[in-house]
Amino acid sequence: MGSLDADLPVVTVDGFKPLDVDDLRKQLLLSVDFIVDYYKNVDAQPVLPQVQPGYLRHLMPAAPPPRGATLEDALRDIRLAVLPGMTNWASPNFFAYFPATLGSAALVGDFIASALNPVAFTWLSCPAATELEELVLDWLAQLLRLPPAFRSSSDSRGAGGGVIHATTSEAILCTLVAARDGAVRRAGGVPISRLVAYGSDQTHSTFAKACRIAGYDQANVRLIPTRLGSGYALVAARLRDAMAADAAAGLVPAYVCATVGTTSSTAVDPLGLIADVAAEFGAWVHVDAAYAGSACICPEFRGFLDGVERADSLSISPHKWLLTGLDCTCLWLRDRPRLAESLGTNPEYLKNEPSESGLVVDCKDLQVGVGRRFRALKLWMVLRTYGVAGLQAHIRSDVEMAQAFEGMVRADRRFEVVVPPRFALVCFRIRAWGGREAAAEADNRSLLALVNGGGRVYVTHTVLDGKYVLRFAVGSTLTEHRHVASAWELIRAKADEVLGGRPLE
Amino acid sequence: MGSLDADLPVVTVDGFKPLDVDDLRKQLLLSVDFIVDYYKNVDAQPVLPQVQPGYLRHLMPAAPPPRGATLEDALRDIRLAVLPGMTNWASPNFFAYFPATLGSAALVGDFIASALNPVAFTWLSCPAATELEELVLDWLAQLLRLPPAFRSSSDSRGAGGGVIHATTSEAILCTLVAARDGAVRRAGGVPISRLVAYGSDQTHSTFAKACRIAGYDQANVRLIPTRLGSGYALVAARLRDAMAADAAAGLVPAYVCATVGTTSSTAVDPLGLIADVAAEFGAWVHVDAAYAGSACICPEFRGFLDGVERADSLSISPHKWLLTGLDCTCLWLRDRPRLAESLGTNPEYLKNEPSESGLVVDCKDLQVGVGRRFRALKLWMVLRTYGVAGLQAHIRSDVEMAQAFEGMVRADRRFEVVVPPRFALVCFRIRAWGGREAAAEADNRSLLALVNGGGRVYVTHTVLDGKYVLRFAVGSTLTEHRHVASAWELIRAKADEVLGGRPLE
Repeated sequence: MGSLDADLPVVTVDGFKPLDVDDLRKQLLLSVDFIVDYYKNVDAQPVLPQVQPGYLRHLMPAAPPPRGATLEDALRDIRLAVLPGMTNWASPNFFAYFPATLGSAALVGDFIASALNPVAFTWLSCPAATELEELVLDWLAQLLRLPPAFRSSSDSRGAGGGVIHATTSEAILCTLVAARDGAVRRAGGVPISRLVAYGSDQTHSTFAKACRIAGYDQANVRLIPTRLGSGYALVAARLRDAMAADAAAGLVPAYVCATVGTTSSTAVDPLGLIADVAAEFGAWVHVDAAYAGSACICPEFRGFLDGVERADSLSISPHKWLLTGLDCTCLWLRDRPRLAESLGTNPEYLKNEPSESGLVVDCKDLQVGVGRRFRALKLWMVLRTYGVAGLQAHIRSDVEMAQAFEGMVRADRRFEVVVPPRFALVCFRIRAWGGREAAAEADNRSLLALVNGGGRVYVTHTVLDGKYVLRFAVGSTLTEHRHVASAWELIRAKADEVLGGRPLE
Repeated sequence: MGSLDADLPVVTVDGFKPLDVDDLRKQLLLSVDFIVDYYKNVDAQPVLPQVQPGYLRHLMPAAPPPRGATLEDALRDIRLAVLPGMTNWASPNFFAYFPATLGSAALVGDFIASALNPVAFTWLSCPAATELEELVLDWLAQLLRLPPAFRSSSDSRGAGGGVIHATTSEAILCTLVAARDGAVRRAGGVPISRLVAYGSDQTHSTFAKACRIAGYDQANVRLIPTRLGSGYALVAARLRDAMAADAAAGLVPAYVCATVGTTSSTAVDPLGLIADVAAEFGAWVHVDAAYAGSACICPEFRGFLDGVERADSLSISPHKWLLTGLDCTCLWLRDRPRLAESLGTNPEYLKNEPSESGLVVDCKDLQVGVGRRFRALKLWMVLRTYGVAGLQAHIRSDVEMAQAFEGMVRADRRFEVVVPPRFALVCFRIRAWGGREAAAEADNRSLLALVNGGGRVYVTHTVLDGKYVLRFAVGSTLTEHRHVASAWELIRAKADEVLGGRPLE
């Protein structure tokens, strides 16, 4: 390989200091300037970038730089080459997917966590990170009025507790593995290929993917159909039918993923009924409340979590709606040691007295990886700095803005709201006049292309019951009523273009 | 659940702004002050905190705060309650595990990435993040002189390329899943329980864990014994024996995890010979170079990667030795689409034109999760700001300090260097005088407890061939020669205490 890239010039430096404490303030201030500039301008920038695939290669050298550059030069490159290709999730005009929210308290907390840079795989490798994670998960559990069984503080001998993962995908994967191993043990060593996992056709795609990763047979992942009649929620009776049929066929129902707030339409599965059915078959019940779980810190939304007290695990992603910034998914379990049974390791080079004492938790045994960022700090900063009152105000403000948008849609008879909104997502579309579904799909596809085409706002779509639907998700950190109103004006104007003078039969 | 925590007071706020652009600079400056203070003082702080399990619960309220606090108050809490419980990985006196390094360019890059907070699951959801990841992986591949087959830029029709994962664990898990699915297909639908994965007894524990997660039978994970004679490297002939025996027994050799720089002693497995053996059986070869891979940016270390051109995949964690801060693991593959075959999803709500064009990469299909941090930015900042020259100087400086430490150990006849150091880790111990291994273990355990007891430095241990050994890993970002010398003085003094006046026979 010696001749490859032999043209890379050889340069050496003396006294290289990757982190010069005397110069650190000056360097960090450059990033503060960059970030403040970005936020001052983001409202005026396109949400969707106007770049073509491969754009960046034309703006940067193909080979790594032999010599270093100043931080100023590097940041200038970012302004010139990176910012123009950003999909600006921080823009107040971002209404796509679900928002990724970020409060300044989280930004400060994450910055400090990055600077401290601990690797808290065991308690001893960073007691503060491990214990702050326990504490903040218990705080949030209280705020969500989770049953005491999920909290590590309520009874020191209890088995409940949580862990912070990177994503919902990791939470689902880890609980799928624990459920899998438990089901195999209980069924006397039945092969994994006989296990079955259940969700609905609205369950996030990461569920079926996690099943594949964990070795479940793809043919044994049941995505039970839902309909508008039940608000796209999983119907417990249909789950029971599926489980009973599988059990009769000699398969082993092992895991149910229920969702509070599905991605397409924020449908809420009936947790209590699902838990009843799962209990008949001894299956693990996981509740994925990635988006809508955050709303349940408000009493008026808490009912959507009813039944969670009979679930085995629950995950919520504060990076979506609780202002923590990516990534931060909280997973609570009533029997946390079951995770460690499947995910625990004990290599010699990590052995230490506190771990052997059994008095501490080693987070590496509750997740996919060994290393882990100190994510608890930003979540703690959010709870401490905003308090319960601030966070509830934040949720309610987003819901109010979504209701305002819903009102605007309903006031225009060319449109329909496809499913009654529950949180801060509005699913709507140009109506299928005269029942012409194909035409409606074409109209709505055109509308979406026109709305997003200018880059001024970003809205995405889904398909519900075969209908092509636009999703308008309110809640980007900086979004105010005026942004929502302005987006609606744009949508109306583009609908005029799509529908032209066509008569509204 | 309504009555639970009914004592949480109800407080409301008006005009809550989680990110006030006008106040942002002031808030961010508070975190700059915090970080600069931390780094100015970290040299004088204990590396290992002097706290007991459960310490934090005594310092913070048990319930979440109803009202918000100022950022100043929140940061004061962190100083009072979090910092005293930190294991200070940033301390220049940290010699435990492998270091987690962080240059200020990475800190700046990560801060900006956190502020931009994009969720680059598809190209469209953030073209800049996706394309910068491609570019920086190609830069690093060139720096490492990886074969063109691993680079996405070398041939637009080639299948090679990379992805940034959180940890080595994720890289191993994802490649294990791709290898598993490929082996199942090739063997005509053989059950997963018949597949076998191979490493050595020095392979990181996360390998066996990833095998469990991916559904491999634990009985089919072979950790082939190594010995001092081969420098604790995997002997290819023993691998062939194991694979042949398994194949003869009707099992299917599917995956080999070779390591460049094992955790215990930085052993280097012979990649070329291992690839030859694996090829006989059609098994996937992954190279885990989490720590030592970074050193291979220097020509004098590149030989340790020889043979990688015949591997299927390679992972290196720049968060360990290449100054990027946690978390950042680079994974390169010669056939990247095989990852997507196993990990790809295509839900309606993420469908978009660029993805369907086939001209772009969607990173969600190359990892466990859907969401992902913009990790490429900090890695790009490191390469751009330090250049090849700075990074090579950084590696060489750490290796020189380790060599200096090795010299000090060798000059004291009470000690022995257990295995010749190759990178910046020195494995050493108090000798087993007269072959008394039990006494040597007790001596070295006592020595480690005394050395770490004061909190001034942090050193960890391992066991090699049954011998209890101390690991001295040089390379924390701020470590200079004087810290190494001072740590050695402490070790010598504690050895005096352990050995007392005992005669050195």
